[in-house]
Amino acid sequence: MGESITGLKRSHMCCHVNETMIGQEVTVMGWVQRRRDLGQLIFIALRDRTGLVQIAIDGNTAPKEIFEKAETVRSEYTLAVRGIVTARTEGNINPNMKTGKIEIIASELRILSESETTPFQIEDNITVKDDLRLKYRYLDLRRPCQLKNIVLRHQVVQALRSFLNNEGFLEIETPILGKSTPEGARDYLVPSRVHPGNFYGLPQSPQLYKQLLMVSGMDRYYQIAKCFRDEDLRADRQPEFTQVDMELSFIDVDDIMDINERLMQKVFKDIMNVDVQLPLQRMTYKEAMERFGSDKPDVRFGMELVNISDVVAGTDFVVFKSALEAGGSVRAINAKGCGSFPRKKIDSLVEFVKTYRAKGLAWIVVNEDGSLKSQIAKFFTPEKLQEIVDKMEGKPGDLILICADKDKVVFDSLGALRLELSKMLELTRPDDFRFLWITEFPMLEWDEEENRYVAVHHPFTAPMDEDLELLDTDPGAVRAKAYDIVLNGYELGGGSIRIHRRDIQQKMFELLGFTQEDAQERFGFLLDAFKYGVPPHGGLAFGLDRIIMLMSNAPSIRDVIAFPKVKDASCPMTDAPNVVDQKQLDELAICFNEEILKAAAAETEEA
Amino acid sequence: MGESITGLKRSHMCCHVNETMIGQEVTVMGWVQRRRDLGQLIFIALRDRTGLVQIAIDGNTAPKEIFEKAETVRSEYTLAVRGIVTARTEGNINPNMKTGKIEIIASELRILSESETTPFQIEDNITVKDDLRLKYRYLDLRRPCQLKNIVLRHQVVQALRSFLNNEGFLEIETPILGKSTPEGARDYLVPSRVHPGNFYGLPQSPQLYKQLLMVSGMDRYYQIAKCFRDEDLRADRQPEFTQVDMELSFIDVDDIMDINERLMQKVFKDIMNVDVQLPLQRMTYKEAMERFGSDKPDVRFGMELVNISDVVAGTDFVVFKSALEAGGSVRAINAKGCGSFPRKKIDSLVEFVKTYRAKGLAWIVVNEDGSLKSQIAKFFTPEKLQEIVDKMEGKPGDLILICADKDKVVFDSLGALRLELSKMLELTRPDDFRFLWITEFPMLEWDEEENRYVAVHHPFTAPMDEDLELLDTDPGAVRAKAYDIVLNGYELGGGSIRIHRRDIQQKMFELLGFTQEDAQERFGFLLDAFKYGVPPHGGLAFGLDRIIMLMSNAPSIRDVIAFPKVKDASCPMTDAPNVVDQKQLDELAICFNEEILKAAAAETEEA
Repeated sequence: MGESITGLKRSHMCCHVNETMIGQEVTVMGWVQRRRDLGQLIFIALRDRTGLVQIAIDGNTAPKEIFEKAETVRSEYTLAVRGIVTARTEGNINPNMKTGKIEIIASELRILSESETTPFQIEDNITVKDDLRLKYRYLDLRRPCQLKNIVLRHQVVQALRSFLNNEGFLEIETPILGKSTPEGARDYLVPSRVHPGNFYGLPQSPQLYKQLLMVSGMDRYYQIAKCFRDEDLRADRQPEFTQVDMELSFIDVDDIMDINERLMQKVFKDIMNVDVQLPLQRMTYKEAMERFGSDKPDVRFGMELVNISDVVAGTDFVVFKSALEAGGSVRAINAKGCGSFPRKKIDSLVEFVKTYRAKGLAWIVVNEDGSLKSQIAKFFTPEKLQEIVDKMEGKPGDLILICADKDKVVFDSLGALRLELSKMLELTRPDDFRFLWITEFPMLEWDEEENRYVAVHHPFTAPMDEDLELLDTDPGAVRAKAYDIVLNGYELGGGSIRIHRRDIQQKMFELLGFTQEDAQERFGFLLDAFKYGVPPHGGLAFGLDRIIMLMSNAPSIRDVIAFPKVKDASCPMTDAPNVVDQKQLDELAICFNEEILKAAAAETEEA
Repeated sequence: MGESITGLKRSHMCCHVNETMIGQEVTVMGWVQRRRDLGQLIFIALRDRTGLVQIAIDGNTAPKEIFEKAETVRSEYTLAVRGIVTARTEGNINPNMKTGKIEIIASELRILSESETTPFQIEDNITVKDDLRLKYRYLDLRRPCQLKNIVLRHQVVQALRSFLNNEGFLEIETPILGKSTPEGARDYLVPSRVHPGNFYGLPQSPQLYKQLLMVSGMDRYYQIAKCFRDEDLRADRQPEFTQVDMELSFIDVDDIMDINERLMQKVFKDIMNVDVQLPLQRMTYKEAMERFGSDKPDVRFGMELVNISDVVAGTDFVVFKSALEAGGSVRAINAKGCGSFPRKKIDSLVEFVKTYRAKGLAWIVVNEDGSLKSQIAKFFTPEKLQEIVDKMEGKPGDLILICADKDKVVFDSLGALRLELSKMLELTRPDDFRFLWITEFPMLEWDEEENRYVAVHHPFTAPMDEDLELLDTDPGAVRAKAYDIVLNGYELGGGSIRIHRRDIQQKMFELLGFTQEDAQERFGFLLDAFKYGVPPHGGLAFGLDRIIMLMSNAPSIRDVIAFPKVKDASCPMTDAPNVVDQKQLDELAICFNEEILKAAAAETEEA
């Protein structure tokens, strides 16, 4: 049932035992990867965090008691083994194993604990459902591919901190039990026992606190901060996630970009030995949308969007015509070399863009002989069709894909189509890291549902100095001092210079449709703080989970989090969330709205 | 309303400007500490995180516009100043100021933001109520004494991490949205929207997760972890607090003590330049109680408890007699040199111990002439009284204080009395750091209210090998492989070796009165994990807030937390917790138990 380790002290991690120690006595401890019996010889591959080492028990020389014990050993038992490091005989050397030249001849063996058969093999490249993996996450983490992610995360976090410490940042903790400020995503709430009827909100980010730290003169703040959003989960979202959060005083946009691109350079160099060339490419939001249909473009490949509105203007094809008349545009991408796609495959692309609300996708194939084939050929003169192809620099073998609609739909559709094609054609490598900055984001966007402007970044983002006057005349056109850092099609982080003038902050709240009372109720403490000498300040937050995911080329952020939650925000391992005792509810003076509960239950049943 | 810093770049922090830069142009930015006008000369003391530097604006040489602007500057305005570093004239040198030999002659001055009069002075040693300080915590943090704590905390955390990284620990984040496991303190709950009627629990510590990380083979884990307890607050408690949490595999008690005392040594050396001698003193729980009446003794001074039960056994004084007959004890401390306390002061000590449930306190004064004075003299022969004094090594001028009761009451009372006397007599210095380990804690204690055993440490703590058999025969006598690290009367941290055998863990749950179903419901995932090869493991957690409080000699842990909460668990700055929208409640399917709400409101009114 488990021997004690009393009197035994581990001398080495498994994979640190090597040829230089031959003849030396070592003590290793770990899990049994496998046991092989060869008559009077038993071999055990013992595993710890560092890797494997071979233990040999020789029935001819080992004490009988040890040999008999070794015979009972099964996979995933934990052992402590004392023995002499010995060179393997020539034929037994394993060049694929770091410790493949040696083995440990056991003189003492203790079974520290036994193991039942694990629900899946403790190995990489196994086929096992995610649900089962996550239910037994403590076993899943034993697999080298998962362990590697946790180690990488540890290393990245240390490198980040080391850099920021050297740049004069202070690491400061901000509260988790905060104030619920219903703007942006949905807050997680925590009922108060001392103040029944009241709630704390878990922070969606430390935004307000870090701005207050700037007011307090901390000058440079960072935190590896847990953040919470009660939103429906997607593949790359978790109810709690980790931000590398920072804020700086007395700086401008360029200072923040400079520090953060050096930060990324350092982390990628230290951890991955990847050289990131600085300064990073910078691209305005407008350019990113026009060229890539995305504010987080993957610039590892071309296939850029081209506006062909002027080419098709004045033609009679009703789809193009009505899009242009409605203020939209006609844009296209040239899928180089895809002219040979079978019709079925092209049709699937047409279906694909419909999920982005495009009504359709026109296509022109440039045949090998230079002739054109298109489902919209009949709407155009051959010259016009050729003009489109020329504008798209179409060559024999190319496929031109055209979308006409409101700009937003065109950008979304062609942007996504571009990525889909790169996946199909395997145009990119995960170890090709292409960073860039996206700048000059719009400050506000119109929310049709709420019938008001909402902040694209957040309500504390400063407008660009050049656009200050537009706040009164054309708020939708105001650009913000906001910037995102993008890597291979993912937003790694984003930030902004904040408003440090109280009058502009109040104007912003007005534009967002907050009454004076609203603003005071929600952000009063920040507005109050702004009365007492605010430094110009700004910051940025990186999504740590996503950075690690990209660095490790993991399929999901769930693979880079020790204990992740699944899509319904539950934890398959602990079964959280769960029901609690009535006593706990009474202490909080809360009960359930039975009507809503019933409706929810009915909905679940239907689904 | 605030000038922009566009075009200006800070070249130096205020306090980094020095004599070597005379003649150089610098740009500094910060807050106005004060302005002094001397006719055509204006002096501004400008403050940032590093300290103060003097700005001089000379009306004879400075541009008129700058001089006029300088005249409008008031305390706590934020400024950007460009100018030439200049030596102060002999008479103007300020030896109390790090930058006292120089000043910056301003050639450019921008008012970045203005400030109203602050509700209190931005200075150390001001008299201001805590509530006001915390409402304006962002101003409070501008005061050097508060800033210093935040900087110290930053430094300590970096030193802790650096040490643990070097010792092979992995920093791993564990979930905040966890499972509510009602054992120990009260959990904070978070209602689930996706699973209405269910709740997450915020972790009281990452205990279960860190043990699972050991099962997963991480070997050495640490985390600077946010923990949550919904308990009524005391001066040194916060609803959320920070633990330096660690867990190690394949180790025994000595390994953990060794690493952690070297950790403390390193932190105190690096940050405070204090030498901590290793190995630290070790004391069993039993000895600590007998000698100091406390499991976290302040060993900077003597005045130890002495058991005089055998001396007074057989005497007729009913208080002593009945205490002994009930299985209690009679113990005393010798308050050296306190014989001259006026009667009123002695009476106040008698009152003091009553808060620890002592029924009274007997006292004997040893007069300067060696005669004895005591309120209990009449119950004893003079010889017996002298025998007590001799046992207590009483000398002329001493005051002997005696308590008789159940052991627990005697220890609590005399332990607290000892600390109270040290405070009165100023026996200790805050910069005298006396660490020690307390070991061999009892495993279980009997809870009168719940009529069952509860775990002294937690239900996963391993019993000492020597006491394993007592689990069946005398559970209350079983000692645990648990240890606390104590500094100057405070528990800095504590931990234990965990049970890694499933059979012992189940026996422990039985002793704690959990049914099999209870245990499975609450800790099933841990019990399951224990089926698959568990390494012997153990760990420790430090209370970070308390360490920083002791290092900085701050009066409260509130002073070492950026945004602390007050006694009713609210935040005076943000007004959290607060009421939320009905929509938010509906989404969670919760409502209020009006009856309990009303009762709570009535209670508040009464109080």
